[in-house]
Amino acid sequence: MKIALDAMGGDCGSAVLIDGAIQAIEQYAKIEVVLIGHEDLLREELARRGKATEPRLSIVHASQAVSMEEEAVESVRRKKDSTIMVGFDLVKKGQAEAMVSAGHSGATMTAAILQLGRLKGISRPSIASFFPTLKEPVLVTDIGGNVDCRPQHLYQFAVMASFCCQLLMNRPAPRVGLLNIGEEPGKGNAAVKEAYDLIKASSLNFIGNVEGRDVYGGDVDVVVCDGFVGNIALKVSEGLAEAMQQMLKAEIKKSWRASLASLFIRPAFDSFRKRVDYAEYGGAPLLGINGTGIICHGTSSAIAIRNAIKEAAKMVEGHVNKAITGHLQQEAGQS
Amino acid sequence: MKIALDAMGGDCGSAVLIDGAIQAIEQYAKIEVVLIGHEDLLREELARRGKATEPRLSIVHASQAVSMEEEAVESVRRKKDSTIMVGFDLVKKGQAEAMVSAGHSGATMTAAILQLGRLKGISRPSIASFFPTLKEPVLVTDIGGNVDCRPQHLYQFAVMASFCCQLLMNRPAPRVGLLNIGEEPGKGNAAVKEAYDLIKASSLNFIGNVEGRDVYGGDVDVVVCDGFVGNIALKVSEGLAEAMQQMLKAEIKKSWRASLASLFIRPAFDSFRKRVDYAEYGGAPLLGINGTGIICHGTSSAIAIRNAIKEAAKMVEGHVNKAITGHLQQEAGQS
Repeated sequence: MKIALDAMGGDCGSAVLIDGAIQAIEQYAKIEVVLIGHEDLLREELARRGKATEPRLSIVHASQAVSMEEEAVESVRRKKDSTIMVGFDLVKKGQAEAMVSAGHSGATMTAAILQLGRLKGISRPSIASFFPTLKEPVLVTDIGGNVDCRPQHLYQFAVMASFCCQLLMNRPAPRVGLLNIGEEPGKGNAAVKEAYDLIKASSLNFIGNVEGRDVYGGDVDVVVCDGFVGNIALKVSEGLAEAMQQMLKAEIKKSWRASLASLFIRPAFDSFRKRVDYAEYGGAPLLGINGTGIICHGTSSAIAIRNAIKEAAKMVEGHVNKAITGHLQQEAGQS
Repeated sequence: MKIALDAMGGDCGSAVLIDGAIQAIEQYAKIEVVLIGHEDLLREELARRGKATEPRLSIVHASQAVSMEEEAVESVRRKKDSTIMVGFDLVKKGQAEAMVSAGHSGATMTAAILQLGRLKGISRPSIASFFPTLKEPVLVTDIGGNVDCRPQHLYQFAVMASFCCQLLMNRPAPRVGLLNIGEEPGKGNAAVKEAYDLIKASSLNFIGNVEGRDVYGGDVDVVVCDGFVGNIALKVSEGLAEAMQQMLKAEIKKSWRASLASLFIRPAFDSFRKRVDYAEYGGAPLLGINGTGIICHGTSSAIAIRNAIKEAAKMVEGHVNKAITGHLQQEAGQS
């Protein structure tokens, strides 16, 4: 199982990415990682870690990298030899089974569609992301750039995320909820109202509308929304989680007694922080492309990269794409 | 300054509401509160507090109350003598200057529009809510039911919230941001893209697009979005804040040392919890109605009710509505 890793993407540099790759091959015997990036630089990094001759780590050279500031479509068009383009090209040629990148997410999505194409029956690929909850993580999609979605798109997001969640998280019949401003059917904007009927008519385990509050409750496995709403929900959550930690720190600092006591709570704080830190979660599956791709947070730790590589392997092994197209064909056959 | 208070609305019963009213008149000499609800019950509650003859507290009888489960428009149509309808009727007749309710927010909005009508030049009234941030609270609008907004609506939300923030929070030129999935102009869905140009062309202090993360950063005073997005942002935040507190508690409980130490941190935790508790904030101004109304959280504390009453008085004193219509007339004259 060969997984391509964009070894130049992300905010933390190649070292963290390579550490993640090494952790992945050490923990999962059947995984091989193809590091994509500047060959000399990567070879040096591997040598420094005593892994220059590790047979399950290989390097494929790419002369360019897409920076976070670039415009997605433009960067893909201009930089044909970027790590992202080279990575998905490997997948296309069958030289890797999946691609993982912590780089520019818009460019990664664009490159994936360009190199691999869309999955049969899918109009718009989407990005899904795991949010931490009080119980198991919930898969929210789309958190990407699909603004102005039609009901049919939302329905397809539901199908894709449902099978992704089922096969990746081993949940037999994921509970699918439609993100809305009220629980009753008939709530929401025009697209959401129609999408409700489409999802309800399908064979998915649809539990109806869910509200913003429900996202973190852990009683829904898949939350469906358009990319505008999903992006806002994700970013608002990241901002609030950070702000809350800062506020708590500030309150504790106001008293020497609390400051002192907080030393004993530090381990609890640390594991709490990890639990709410989005960068600690593996990565966001790209759904609806004719292949497998995972987008990681720009600030991913080595552990997050390791988890994302494992996640990519699990998506391939679980035949997520086959399950999605199979379902769509079956439903098309019935109507 | 007479403020009408729905003394039956909310999840916590009349006692909390009356306590809030008493706190308000005790702290603000020029405020009088008209309690609206079941006369005998309210008289009894006042007597129990030794306030039966308090000249700045009066009672107006309303025989009905709208429960949280009812459908907004339907409840307003059916219950002509509800506390909400009676309250806005008082405002209409000039017997109160503003109305405060912790009851059904949709019904409150509907009753306000029915009794008072829309402000001149406003197509859709909106609900604005203060979110806590690392610095000063930010006013987010619409968090109500305005789904499927046109660019013009978003522009009007920006105007209304800007003057509300200016006059209520004493911020001379509130920084207005448009909630979007990226900072660059040209990002977002069709309505948001057009709204960007409309707000930019106005004389408001527009700082451009802001992302979800920026809501809690404290570097923007007014955040504009449609009611679908605003509702999701608010509810996701409420859900996450609650989940994070539970997660932290669970992590601390895992160790006896942390549990013990946490006793010393309790005061810091308590003031932290207050800071992120939406129910502690005064209330959400109803913008764009021909009068003044404040919607409080259903679980508002007496302090929150007191703050909302003060807020209502400040909106009246600040002539927020006059500022809004004045601005709209001026911009209409220029175009």
